[in-house]
Amino acid sequence: MASSYGLHSGYFHPTLRKWQGGAGTTIAPHNLMLPIFVVDDEDGIEPISSMPGVLRMGINTMAVFLEPLVAKGLEAVLLFSVTNILKDDTGEIGAKPSNPTVGAIKRIKRDYPDLLVAVDVCLCPYTISGHCGVLKDDGFIDNGRSLIQIVKIAKSFVLAGADVIAPSDMMDGRIKAIKDMLQTLGCMNRVSVMSYSVKFASAFYGPFREAAHSAPAFGDRKRYQLPLASRGLAMRAAKRDEVEGADMLMVKPGLAYLDIVREVKDRHPELPMAIYQVSGEYAMLHHGAAAGAFDLKAIVMETLTAMRRSGADIIITYFTPQLLDWLMEK
Amino acid sequence: MASSYGLHSGYFHPTLRKWQGGAGTTIAPHNLMLPIFVVDDEDGIEPISSMPGVLRMGINTMAVFLEPLVAKGLEAVLLFSVTNILKDDTGEIGAKPSNPTVGAIKRIKRDYPDLLVAVDVCLCPYTISGHCGVLKDDGFIDNGRSLIQIVKIAKSFVLAGADVIAPSDMMDGRIKAIKDMLQTLGCMNRVSVMSYSVKFASAFYGPFREAAHSAPAFGDRKRYQLPLASRGLAMRAAKRDEVEGADMLMVKPGLAYLDIVREVKDRHPELPMAIYQVSGEYAMLHHGAAAGAFDLKAIVMETLTAMRRSGADIIITYFTPQLLDWLMEK
Amino acid sequence: MASSYGLHSGYFHPTLRKWQGGAGTTIAPHNLMLPIFVVDDEDGIEPISSMPGVLRMGINTMAVFLEPLVAKGLEAVLLFSVTNILKDDTGEIGAKPSNPTVGAIKRIKRDYPDLLVAVDVCLCPYTISGHCGVLKDDGFIDNGRSLIQIVKIAKSFVLAGADVIAPSDMMDGRIKAIKDMLQTLGCMNRVSVMSYSVKFASAFYGPFREAAHSAPAFGDRKRYQLPLASRGLAMRAAKRDEVEGADMLMVKPGLAYLDIVREVKDRHPELPMAIYQVSGEYAMLHHGAAAGAFDLKAIVMETLTAMRRSGADIIITYFTPQLLDWLMEK
Amino acid sequence: MASSYGLHSGYFHPTLRKWQGGAGTTIAPHNLMLPIFVVDDEDGIEPISSMPGVLRMGINTMAVFLEPLVAKGLEAVLLFSVTNILKDDTGEIGAKPSNPTVGAIKRIKRDYPDLLVAVDVCLCPYTISGHCGVLKDDGFIDNGRSLIQIVKIAKSFVLAGADVIAPSDMMDGRIKAIKDMLQTLGCMNRVSVMSYSVKFASAFYGPFREAAHSAPAFGDRKRYQLPLASRGLAMRAAKRDEVEGADMLMVKPGLAYLDIVREVKDRHPELPMAIYQVSGEYAMLHHGAAAGAFDLKAIVMETLTAMRRSGADIIITYFTPQLLDWLMEK
Amino acid sequence: MASSYGLHSGYFHPTLRKWQGGAGTTIAPHNLMLPIFVVDDEDGIEPISSMPGVLRMGINTMAVFLEPLVAKGLEAVLLFSVTNILKDDTGEIGAKPSNPTVGAIKRIKRDYPDLLVAVDVCLCPYTISGHCGVLKDDGFIDNGRSLIQIVKIAKSFVLAGADVIAPSDMMDGRIKAIKDMLQTLGCMNRVSVMSYSVKFASAFYGPFREAAHSAPAFGDRKRYQLPLASRGLAMRAAKRDEVEGADMLMVKPGLAYLDIVREVKDRHPELPMAIYQVSGEYAMLHHGAAAGAFDLKAIVMETLTAMRRSGADIIITYFTPQLLDWLMEK
Amino acid sequence: MASSYGLHSGYFHPTLRKWQGGAGTTIAPHNLMLPIFVVDDEDGIEPISSMPGVLRMGINTMAVFLEPLVAKGLEAVLLFSVTNILKDDTGEIGAKPSNPTVGAIKRIKRDYPDLLVAVDVCLCPYTISGHCGVLKDDGFIDNGRSLIQIVKIAKSFVLAGADVIAPSDMMDGRIKAIKDMLQTLGCMNRVSVMSYSVKFASAFYGPFREAAHSAPAFGDRKRYQLPLASRGLAMRAAKRDEVEGADMLMVKPGLAYLDIVREVKDRHPELPMAIYQVSGEYAMLHHGAAAGAFDLKAIVMETLTAMRRSGADIIITYFTPQLLDWLMEK
Ligand SMILES: [Zn+2]
Ligand SMILES: [Zn+2]
Ligand SMILES: [Zn+2]
Ligand SMILES: [Zn+2]
Ligand SMILES: [Zn+2]
Ligand SMILES: [Zn+2]
Repeated sequence: MASSYGLHSGYFHPTLRKWQGGAGTTIAPHNLMLPIFVVDDEDGIEPISSMPGVLRMGINTMAVFLEPLVAKGLEAVLLFSVTNILKDDTGEIGAKPSNPTVGAIKRIKRDYPDLLVAVDVCLCPYTISGHCGVLKDDGFIDNGRSLIQIVKIAKSFVLAGADVIAPSDMMDGRIKAIKDMLQTLGCMNRVSVMSYSVKFASAFYGPFREAAHSAPAFGDRKRYQLPLASRGLAMRAAKRDEVEGADMLMVKPGLAYLDIVREVKDRHPELPMAIYQVSGEYAMLHHGAAAGAFDLKAIVMETLTAMRRSGADIIITYFTPQLLDWLMEK
Repeated sequence: MASSYGLHSGYFHPTLRKWQGGAGTTIAPHNLMLPIFVVDDEDGIEPISSMPGVLRMGINTMAVFLEPLVAKGLEAVLLFSVTNILKDDTGEIGAKPSNPTVGAIKRIKRDYPDLLVAVDVCLCPYTISGHCGVLKDDGFIDNGRSLIQIVKIAKSFVLAGADVIAPSDMMDGRIKAIKDMLQTLGCMNRVSVMSYSVKFASAFYGPFREAAHSAPAFGDRKRYQLPLASRGLAMRAAKRDEVEGADMLMVKPGLAYLDIVREVKDRHPELPMAIYQVSGEYAMLHHGAAAGAFDLKAIVMETLTAMRRSGADIIITYFTPQLLDWLMEK
Repeated sequence: MASSYGLHSGYFHPTLRKWQGGAGTTIAPHNLMLPIFVVDDEDGIEPISSMPGVLRMGINTMAVFLEPLVAKGLEAVLLFSVTNILKDDTGEIGAKPSNPTVGAIKRIKRDYPDLLVAVDVCLCPYTISGHCGVLKDDGFIDNGRSLIQIVKIAKSFVLAGADVIAPSDMMDGRIKAIKDMLQTLGCMNRVSVMSYSVKFASAFYGPFREAAHSAPAFGDRKRYQLPLASRGLAMRAAKRDEVEGADMLMVKPGLAYLDIVREVKDRHPELPMAIYQVSGEYAMLHHGAAAGAFDLKAIVMETLTAMRRSGADIIITYFTPQLLDWLMEK
Repeated sequence: MASSYGLHSGYFHPTLRKWQGGAGTTIAPHNLMLPIFVVDDEDGIEPISSMPGVLRMGINTMAVFLEPLVAKGLEAVLLFSVTNILKDDTGEIGAKPSNPTVGAIKRIKRDYPDLLVAVDVCLCPYTISGHCGVLKDDGFIDNGRSLIQIVKIAKSFVLAGADVIAPSDMMDGRIKAIKDMLQTLGCMNRVSVMSYSVKFASAFYGPFREAAHSAPAFGDRKRYQLPLASRGLAMRAAKRDEVEGADMLMVKPGLAYLDIVREVKDRHPELPMAIYQVSGEYAMLHHGAAAGAFDLKAIVMETLTAMRRSGADIIITYFTPQLLDWLMEK
Repeated sequence: MASSYGLHSGYFHPTLRKWQGGAGTTIAPHNLMLPIFVVDDEDGIEPISSMPGVLRMGINTMAVFLEPLVAKGLEAVLLFSVTNILKDDTGEIGAKPSNPTVGAIKRIKRDYPDLLVAVDVCLCPYTISGHCGVLKDDGFIDNGRSLIQIVKIAKSFVLAGADVIAPSDMMDGRIKAIKDMLQTLGCMNRVSVMSYSVKFASAFYGPFREAAHSAPAFGDRKRYQLPLASRGLAMRAAKRDEVEGADMLMVKPGLAYLDIVREVKDRHPELPMAIYQVSGEYAMLHHGAAAGAFDLKAIVMETLTAMRRSGADIIITYFTPQLLDWLMEK
Repeated sequence: MASSYGLHSGYFHPTLRKWQGGAGTTIAPHNLMLPIFVVDDEDGIEPISSMPGVLRMGINTMAVFLEPLVAKGLEAVLLFSVTNILKDDTGEIGAKPSNPTVGAIKRIKRDYPDLLVAVDVCLCPYTISGHCGVLKDDGFIDNGRSLIQIVKIAKSFVLAGADVIAPSDMMDGRIKAIKDMLQTLGCMNRVSVMSYSVKFASAFYGPFREAAHSAPAFGDRKRYQLPLASRGLAMRAAKRDEVEGADMLMVKPGLAYLDIVREVKDRHPELPMAIYQVSGEYAMLHHGAAAGAFDLKAIVMETLTAMRRSGADIIITYFTPQLLDWLMEK
């Protein structure tokens, strides 16, 4: 046998195996970002049946909930609005002070000033249609008006103190629109934009829709979320976001799209790369472990290792609380 | 907005979305391969608790089971031995006519002569240790003796009529050893070798170990199955197998390794690429759907589409029976 | 300003800066390898004046010295022989049981069985000339005879239980020669070869020569260590070692050769990459800090971060004991 | 052994070793640039304790100091202001005729008209905060106002006769701002811009802060100097500077960033590449040699050879005076 | 105008222009190699009418001639045999001690031991046909027998002390044949092979044929020297030589083949690259200058700069004596 | 010998050699462009001593001279003004109807309407300084005013009927300025711009300066013609011209810059590539042949083959008349 074909010599010992991990496959607290669903009632606390162990919270509840996590090393959160305030066609309430996320940003910045606060920006939590853009009469997205609304909401979050704006709407041109707003505000250098660059129209989002009350009232999102099979659109979307100035790129969902993560990272090695382990992934790992198919910690660590291996620097995951414990165990 | 940045125009219509799918993301019966666990008792039929809906079968049961599937278009199976015959240190029984897989090969070739018969080759079903190679006193693999045994077993399957030999043992140099045997037998041109080229030491194999009674009696397989994080060893293993003559390459497990599939396919576009949707993946999709997190058909189709998008030509999956139905539904 | 040209938004916050670190720039205990100079006297302990804080030790002293380090997470050591046993022209004593390194290997394997033991292999500690190969009358290296001696020494270390053979001699063809020996011994899968692939004829080795008593008796090593300016030979040497079967590659010295590390890693991403922060680097960082030019911890961490950034997976450094403490602080 | 694996034949002779040096690794006077710290007192001469042998000088002292160096071949200098004139929040004095650097430019252009005069441009020598940009109340940089001030200072240096403007401030967009000023002045073709493109927040700057009295009054520069581990931001910064019209790029510090030099040069081979061997590097080589760890000339030449090998065309170094002598010796 | 399009700012000053030279365009003595024609008569000295100023010399004359050149920095020569000893069909005399080149090698090694001695190896100076290989009856080259003779001659030069063997014959496979001989002799690490890898069937060789009496007696060399227009064969020849172990590659002639030099260097950056400024080039530059079309020094320096720019590390040129003077002037 | 290393089999036969020529190395009349020096006196005819056989001509002489050449296939000419009309600082006369080139354009368009008429555009034939741009008091180019004058002259040629405008001045931004003028004139689609994109400050221009009376009155052109060694500026200049809309790119001079031609063509394969075999090249080939160093036809054909091989589509050469004959011979 050619000596270069004897591979066992490279990984027979635990330390050798760590060396084979190569660059960027370890997991540290700073690689994790915790999604938080913020509700209107400041003391609210609501379990989400499809995502066992995940809660919707008001800002007071949230503040208490975060304390032990920050102590364990939590560095970043991603806020979602779940509001019952009166909605309209264009999502005006998203930019209002009454949006519970605005309060959440301020509260975290007061209580945990070092915690990095990222905020999801979209129209779907605020529109009657539940769609991520303003609709025209023919049912198509009005891209121009949608951008105006998205920028308006993003601006209100920036003024509240958000560190990272994370637009998840998939409208064409939103990154540039947000960056232009930041430049006008004079705060382009104190706010990051993490783009949901490559977001597929996936069946893995099911539980989230319960969590965030975000299912569209009619139709689906296939006209703006990417077709499952499309590498091409995925690459074009990532490229566009880089050109428009995104500070970080994202691929969503996670596990079933690691090939896309790899390819985006290979093309854009200069930008930090996020991946979203979405609600359906959370649920299936949870239920699989509960049914005894595998050990939860082992399987979650394997999926996160895989995400890191495929190029992700940032992993948005509902398992963050458990992971902070697991990382300390090891 | 730069006109090349308006992406919605590329996928607002269902037909446009299909065009974006790009090459090789559709799923046809010939892309599927069904794993079958063959037991000693020719009329045996045993449910596997950790894999609801999957059975271990004797050759008679199997023959009956296959009939409707072949009618629906099944083109390929992958056989595994689950035997209680007296084992030893080197897995001698694997190469004996009493190995139930030998009978299964012959039976399928008699009853369904057009069905492509692939056979898993390893030592673990036949050794007392349950390890995939012959062990030395110091607990390390004796690579040379292991190759001799693997070749012996493969040869018995070839003589029984197998179309595809699929070594899953991860010993160094087994592809060349098998190909040399085939050349000596004069049947290199009637037997393919599908290498488990890139097989990780994964937590997703849990249910399979129940299914195939294949957990090692002691220790683990980390000295020969690849470390989860290692792109480097994965690429070296695929390269080696190509050089040694593998007809097809495989990545295993599936979903959490799509980045590896992408990279192997990019480096070896000339070879058909297989992916194994393993038992743990089957279980979590099943349980997730059962718990209402998502629709089973939608989620299975999404994962298979993802596998195809990442470069897989052949998908080995326990969902094959359902898929044959779903594909007919369209 | 074009929005993609506003870079500050990507790194104004500590967590954002960590994300920018990208893959593989964190430092963990498994990234460190501690060099140990082993002397004949089993209870010996000798300070090295040119490397303040570094010791030569006998095997008893070494065993005691290692205990707290292992407790703090030390995973790997690299042993060097410093012997006064009677030398000859071909370094025969290197392969003798009296070589103190042989005892050191056995002792570590007994006391700290999980510690990965790498051993430097060369002729210079054992030859009268102090050169790394056997010399011919015309002063040129006798490459063939040198390989025979190197393999002989390597074999004695393998039989003593070494996990990793690390040839530092720079003879042409030594990796293949060592791998052939391992294959003959039947232990190619339990011994790694970490090649000093790219070793330059550097002025940074000064203090080491005192430490290991390894200055050549006459002449210099420019005929076998690489010219400082040569990218080309560096790349050819790394390529050759990969083809000949090296499990890991090394660049030596470290800091002034990060461009070479980058280029070797880019060409050989499949192999773990080691870098040697050599004695002169240790000395200048130590003396620079002592003179108040910079803080020792900050500067050592910066150089190691740089090494990781340039592609190194393994860092061989005399600062390992301090680093194990510093890593726990942080 | 394969004949292409015999490498010794390529470098056994000194002339062969020179050939292996490949392109661009020799060092000539035109590869060197001497930093000069200019103080208010025209006859001032102040030693810098942390950089033994380096002086702060007034313009008369400087003129005398330069004479023998020019005679030995000095071709380029880089001027830094060290002024005690009354500072303010925006660094207005930087653009005033009283800035000692203005006088120094004129003096050199009068006395040594062929000497290329580069001038460092930043706000930190002139602001009360000691930061490189104008600060807003929230402690963040006011990027827009910072650019206005930087351009103002650069313009005063251009009008005084500077050949090269070298902005070291790391504000977003300064290269374009300076080039726009030059175009307006009608002298874009007689002034070069050498950008400190890739300047890391390094611990190697310690002694310089004493030399130039440039430590910030509070906080640090991590919000505008690059994170140590970030290849991505480094590449984005270099790319931006090329697009904005920089005539030369720079990486700073030097030794620990040769991988970055290599990568920037590979991506921008069309632009001359500078590297700054900073104060901490000077100090550690000096102290290391003083402590006997290595020979000063040998080690300085090795580090400069390494810089050239990694792609640097221009080396800014405090060793320039000694190097001019050493180059003549050889 | 976009600021990056103002190029004048990059080269308005002499020092800026030197920086633009980039890597590897300066010329130093070690970049030059002087061809010497050695005749039988040890005291011979013969002008060559077609190459004004170039001489054929015996070894005594040569020794005297070299003295001032070595004093001025000459580092390398390339020897050619011009013999009148009785020739035959296979060039046997080339390997005899009476070959004047054998004496020349020894003489130089005695008188100027540091001078690198390269020796041209071919059959044409020794065969009746004047062809570079042994001919078969059908007029085609007998490649196998040619290799035997070439190796025999090369071996006699090696035993005489040559540092570099430079085969110019263009037979298929000669590099491997020579390397095998060196390996057998045990001196692969003290002899370099500089291959005339890419030698075109050029009209620029005219004067050389007078100089070396090397015109073939009949026919031409188009069956073994490359067609003028062929990039493809040029690249294949260079690749082959690298694989067969050549230490240096060469392109010949020089000026009209700089595109080929560029392409070979780009593909083989790891190997030093030689270029031969052949006799016809020498003649036309000489005559052009004599006729007043340009200044000789300026035009020779421009052509050599061009050669260096295109990737050449070594320039074989008849202008070497003048260049050694010119380099000192500057 | 590996079978792929036997190269002789690819070129032993003349037809095989032609096949090896690859794409684009043949020479046809349409690959040639003839430079013509036009003087004020319409019947003038002046030999140029430094370019034996080349003439300066008035438009009547020119018309007669062209007749047989057109008959032999001449397809393109490049006109140069050599005028004695009163010059000034800004070259105003260049744009006047009295400029003899204006008449020449009209005459050719009348007499040989199918002949492609390219016209050199520069200020040096018309300014007192003899420089290619308008000078400021400090001796630097006034780039803005120069562009205005160049555009004015180009416009007068366009109005006279020129097909191709060929600016040779090397001012920054002239291609865009000329294209803007063409667009304003409404004739962008009937006039090509062939940019002297990459024009080096070469010693090969000597005889031309006599031919065109174009030596500058003082100083040299090194501030706007490219430094000989600069690949980087060459690539940036070609890139800029492509971006600004050049229809064809040119490298000048020819022979010593084939590496640059190769690289420009590799980067800009979409644009036709011109090369200028300049006066000094003409002279040295002429004198070399006259002195018997080589055959003129063979050597000219070899140099043109080399130019074609390196990527040139258009060759501007004074040998065009002879070549038209030689091409017919063959
Ligand atoms: Zn939405
Ligand atoms: Zn197994
Ligand atoms: Zn050694
Ligand atoms: Zn500053
Ligand atoms: Zn010959
Ligand atoms: Zn001109």
